[in-house]
Formats: sequence, structure tokens, C-alpha cells
Amino acid sequence: MSATIDPAQLQSRIDALGAIGRGADGGIYRLVYTPAWIAARDLVEDWMHAGGLTTWTDAAGNLIGRLEGSDAGPVVMTGSHIDAVPCGGAYDGALGVHASLAAVLALQAAHGRPRRSIDVVAICDEEGSRFRSDFLGARAITGELTPAELDRLIDADGITAAEAMAKVGLDPTRIGEARRDDVAAWLELHIEQGGTLEAEGIDLGVVHTITGHRIVRVTLEGRQDHAGTTPMDVRRDPMQAAAEIITRAIEIAREMGRPSVCTCGFLAAEPGAANVVPSTVQFTLDMRDAGATRLAALAGGVDRAIAEVSARHGVTATIAEAVERTPVPLSADLQSLLARHASEAGFSHTSMPSMAGHDTEVMVERWPAAMIFVPSRDGRSHTPAEFTPVEQALPGIQVLAAALQELAY
Amino acid sequence: MSATIDPAQLQSRIDALGAIGRGADGGIYRLVYTPAWIAARDLVEDWMHAGGLTTWTDAAGNLIGRLEGSDAGPVVMTGSHIDAVPCGGAYDGALGVHASLAAVLALQAAHGRPRRSIDVVAICDEEGSRFRSDFLGARAITGELTPAELDRLIDADGITAAEAMAKVGLDPTRIGEARRDDVAAWLELHIEQGGTLEAEGIDLGVVHTITGHRIVRVTLEGRQDHAGTTPMDVRRDPMQAAAEIITRAIEIAREMGRPSVCTCGFLAAEPGAANVVPSTVQFTLDMRDAGATRLAALAGGVDRAIAEVSARHGVTATIAEAVERTPVPLSADLQSLLARHASEAGFSHTSMPSMAGHDTEVMVERWPAAMIFVPSRDGRSHTPAEFTPVEQALPGIQVLAAALQELAY
Repeated sequence: MSATIDPAQLQSRIDALGAIGRGADGGIYRLVYTPAWIAARDLVEDWMHAGGLTTWTDAAGNLIGRLEGSDAGPVVMTGSHIDAVPCGGAYDGALGVHASLAAVLALQAAHGRPRRSIDVVAICDEEGSRFRSDFLGARAITGELTPAELDRLIDADGITAAEAMAKVGLDPTRIGEARRDDVAAWLELHIEQGGTLEAEGIDLGVVHTITGHRIVRVTLEGRQDHAGTTPMDVRRDPMQAAAEIITRAIEIAREMGRPSVCTCGFLAAEPGAANVVPSTVQFTLDMRDAGATRLAALAGGVDRAIAEVSARHGVTATIAEAVERTPVPLSADLQSLLARHASEAGFSHTSMPSMAGHDTEVMVERWPAAMIFVPSRDGRSHTPAEFTPVEQALPGIQVLAAALQELAY
Repeated sequence: MSATIDPAQLQSRIDALGAIGRGADGGIYRLVYTPAWIAARDLVEDWMHAGGLTTWTDAAGNLIGRLEGSDAGPVVMTGSHIDAVPCGGAYDGALGVHASLAAVLALQAAHGRPRRSIDVVAICDEEGSRFRSDFLGARAITGELTPAELDRLIDADGITAAEAMAKVGLDPTRIGEARRDDVAAWLELHIEQGGTLEAEGIDLGVVHTITGHRIVRVTLEGRQDHAGTTPMDVRRDPMQAAAEIITRAIEIAREMGRPSVCTCGFLAAEPGAANVVPSTVQFTLDMRDAGATRLAALAGGVDRAIAEVSARHGVTATIAEAVERTPVPLSADLQSLLARHASEAGFSHTSMPSMAGHDTEVMVERWPAAMIFVPSRDGRSHTPAEFTPVEQALPGIQVLAAALQELAY
């Protein structure tokens, strides 16, 4: 018999955690190491205690609640993050913490003590919004994070990550102590953040790959000219070149089909007056794909478009690499396990890539790791409007519980 | 025998006036009603006095130097403006003032007193850079400028045009007194600000039309989305639409050929993050053509592109009209007169549109008016780099002098 999840308790916990850090604009403000973040961690710790778990906070500020097993061997780990992007919602990250805690407590209620210990983890920082960082919490757990990096990272007020940690009672010089070498597997449930599951009426997704990612900042330098007196045929207009490059780059991703994506989210022209042909245009291109070969094809096509279009318009192009990450495949064994339990429970499911980054891509470099996606209404996330009805979260949580049971009991 | 211009004196006057308001960056800062502007006006008045002209400043601050004629009838007026765009150069406007003064003094030296009086005018404000205004000086002369408008116009420091005038001893309530009803003709010499004369090795241009002008601010509203998790085929991306519209609008102007131009000088995306599909993109399009039918065709083509592209991408387009001016044809008689004198003097010349606005477009609404263009090196203007060698200005000044002689003697 599988574990039983109480939908009403789940909803009340989503609401309670979602009230912490809620601003006047309705968005959640819960950057790592802030008072709102501490309040959120304390609330989750209360729930862990109430459920009979043993809790502690590691050197990075990750909160762990353990259901002790009878064996001393490697533990099964599950969870997600409790930080939020500025003006974020109540589901990104938080739903995964709720899901892991509910699944483990239900397993305990139904089946008692496991063979292997199960650690429910509320990861301190995944979004990286405060320090423009990458996966602080998960990288502390895998042992990648160093005191030097914590001294280097700076928030918008000039406070280093190390200073922010010290202020909440953490010792940044001891960050190495957060490293874990006793993990058998990691499972994370997360909202999809896209609209595929909802649109196709599928209960849950089993993630096969975390997307590869290439963000470039392109600077085009042309010649500033009078917008009236300079004939079109003698211009070296970086805005014209930028418009053609953006059009072409987006078209390349469209033609490649899902899951290729290409986005221009930022563009600025100098001097930026209506009646002046710009001297310089700067813009970003964010390219993603779940396959390394496909991502390379997308990036190569965009690079060729930049070279061809800028040469044709007599403008100079400079490409600065901001982010470059190859796609990360997740554990095939754990994917099979999740898919099998979904099928056995009668849930519709699909194998899909994650087009956003997640803690699981860090975990999988050290131990088997996999992810479950549950539907996101209208595919929205990073907004107070992000939403997943509890009944659409339950299939994913049931599968998580069944997988944890198989791994730990 | 035609009038004789002294190239050395012309160059020294260009340099002397060009030194006034020169900033540390090499650019000229000479906004209307500022100390630098007063110094420039005083210097020109000194030259007028030294040449024996009768001088006065009208209610708007335009400086007039009169060579008195023997008849009491309508006068011939010639000149250009002494204000400059911020970080401007020593030729835009100023060269026309130098040219008119040199031509009139040379005529006086060669032929004595004219039949009709000739007024050399140093117009106070053409660029409109201080108050984001249109042709303050010329519109005072034609009688269009009102005290109410002077109260309404505000500079970057919140000072009204009326306040700025009062500070330099002008009475804005008497602006109506600047109106002239005694003008027989207006002639202006100006740098081309484009590269056509230089590229084609032509001595001077006779302007047939001042360009029509349409500047729009386009706002595209789409749907803000995660740049990774939102598949290309479900996006409503205003940046994609903007890039296609800008590409298409520029292509329409290129296909129409000279003198059609279309420029996007400004674009901004909200929220403007690399990894977010923007909710909103705003950009400007500056369209110009010398023919009303052609300008309407250009504007119509751009409007259709905006409608078609935004509909196809599911974004909402709003078009705000910033500037709309139909092309202004100049006096056919005065064009013939200028062309005839250019031919007689053996100068190569061409009939051409002005793709920038000029005081002459205001003057021609009240009396016959025409313009001479002289070459601009590399077509540059509105920059300290703008330059016309004196020997390339002389043919235009000779033609100006010959035309003034025919009109006034």
C-alpha cells in the first residue's frame, strides 16, 4: 500500500510558507540569508520536528530533516529550495520541499522506520538572485563551494556572501563541512515552469536532461549618423544589423523545434535618440537545448548569423560569453524507477527535458539523481501568478513517495 | 563683377565663433539664452558693426545686421542660426551666418548701397535643443510664436523659455513684436549634413524641398515568460515582433531608394533581463522623405508591417505619433535664380532635398525662400567632427552673394 498524502494539509502548508516574504505587490521576496528566508527555514524545521524528523542546518544554511533508517549506510536525499526570485511565487522550489516532506512523513506513517535514512533537504539558495551565484546550497552539499567564492560573491548592497552568512550565524570558513559523501540518490519534485504537461493533460513529467545553456552579450559597433541626411545605402547601422540577427536567431530556434529556445531579453542603443543612427547596439541572446549536439547547432547557427549580418552591414561584432553550460543527463536508472511507479499508479507521464536549471543538475555529478515535474498553470513561473492546484501536484508526490519507498525501505 | 570673399577672414571667423561654448570634450555647447550664446551673438554683432551694418536684437533674441537700401520697400533677408546642439560643431548654422555676413559685406564693398535693404540674421534658436522646441527664432520672425508657448516650454532644469528670456533681458510678453511683414525673400546657406555633394564632387546643392518627417513611438505588449521553459511556438514575444518590424521598416525605405530614410534609434525592453521573454518592447521609428506621396507610402508600409507582424506574433501594438510634418517645397523662382548664378559662375550644382529641418521651412510659409547646401566632410554633423573646408564653402557663398545682388541691387 502506498503512502497517503493529505491534500488539505499540503494546501495549508503551501499557503503558510507562501505568506513568508510576501510583499505589497503580491510577490514573494525571500533571498537567501535574509530575515524572510530565516522565517521560512524555521517554519519548515517546525514541520519536520512535528513529524518526528531529526533536524539540523549544514554549514551553508541548508536545512535537513532526517527520517532515521535502521542501516548505517548511504542515505536517500530528497528536497528542493526555499529561496525565491524577487517578486516570485509560492511554488517554484517550495512545492518540492512540501512534496518531499509530505512523502517522507506519509511513508513513515504507513511503513515506519526505513532501512536507509531519508534526508529531506530545504536547500538554502538555488535561484542565485541575491549574489548572482549558481546553486550555492547544492554546490555546498556536493563539496564544490569554497570560502574564497563566498568572499568574492557580492549582493546589490555590496555585502559578500561570507558576510551575509556570518550575520545569520553561519561560519563561511567552515563551508567545506557541508560536503556530503554518504548519499545514495537524490530525488527532486518541481513545477514544470512550462505549459507542456497542462496543455497535453499529462499528470507528471520524468526529466531526462537539464537543458544546456548559452547566454551571449553581443556588441555591434557601427557609425553614428544623422537620421535624416544619411542615405540608407551608405549607413553602417548597428540597429538594423541587431534586428536582423535577432530575427534570424529566433527563427533558427523555431525551425529546430522543441525544446530549442532562443530569447533576446535585453537591447540598448547608444546614444539612443530617435533621430540618430546609433553608434552601438548591445543585446543578449539566451540559447537552450536539451541535447549537446542540438545546442552546438543552435549556437553555431547564431554565430554564423552574427558574422554574416554584421559583415554585410559593415558593423563590428563582439561576442561576450556570459553563461555556457552543456546539457546534463539525469540518472537513467532513477528515470526508469520513476516512470515505472507512475505507470503502476495509473498516472499519465512523459519523459521530458527541463529547460530551466535545477539543483538536481549539481547533485547528479556526484550521485544518481532524477526529477519529477508537475504541471504549472499557463506555464507561468517567477511571478506571483505561478500556480499548481494541489490535485495536480498529488500524482507527482505519490510517485516520489513510491520511489523513495523502493530506494529506502 | 561679383563680390569678393576673403577665405582667410572667413576661416578666422569660423574659428573664433567656434571657440565660444567649446567644452572639454571638444564639442560646442551653445544653447539659446545661455552665456555662451550671448557671447556668440555679441561677437557676430561686433563683426556686423565693424562692417558698417545697423544692428538690433528683436523680441526673440534674433540678431539683425542691416545694410540699408535706398528704397523704403520690402527687404531681402539672409542668415542662419547661432545656437548648437549639445556637443555640436562649428559649421551647422554658424557657417550660414558667416556666409550671409561675408556676402553682404562683399557686396557693399563692391557695389555700395543696395536698392533694397538686406538684413543679415543670426537666428537665436533652430535646433530646439534647450526647450525641445521647434524653430523659436524663425517662428518669432514669421509671427507664429506666442507668449503662451514661451510659458509652456521648459528646459531640463525646469526653467521656462519665458524665464530664460527674461534672464537675458528679453520680454517674452512682447514676442509678437519680432514678427516681420516687410520681407521680400529669404536665402540661407547651410552645410549639407549628408555626404552626397562630397561623394559626387559637386560644388553646391540647391534645395528643392525640406523633408517630410514622421517619428513614431511603437509599444508592443506581449507576454512575459521564462526564457527556458516556454517553447518558441507558444510565445507572444514582443522582441521578436520588434526585430521583424524594424527589419521590415528599414527594408521598405531602402527599397524606395534615396531620399527615403527610416531609422530606429531607440529600443527598450521590459523587464530587460537576458533570461526573460520581455513583456513589453518600446522603440522609435524616424521616417523621412522629400515627397508627400513618397512619405505617405513609406509611413503606410511601416504601419502595415507593424499591424501584420504584431498580429502574427499575438502582441498588441500601440503607435504614438511624436512628430508629423509634410514635406515643404521651397520657392521655385529662387531655386532657378540660385541655379542660374551657379551655372554662370561655372560651379557644378544639383537640385536636392534637405533631409534635415531648417529655418527656411518656416520662412517659406510667409515669403519666397530658398537654400544653398555646401559639402559636409564625410556627411558628418551634430558632432565636433563636422567640417567644411573654406574652399568648399566659397562657391556657395559666391552664389549667395550673386543672388542677393540680383534681389537687392
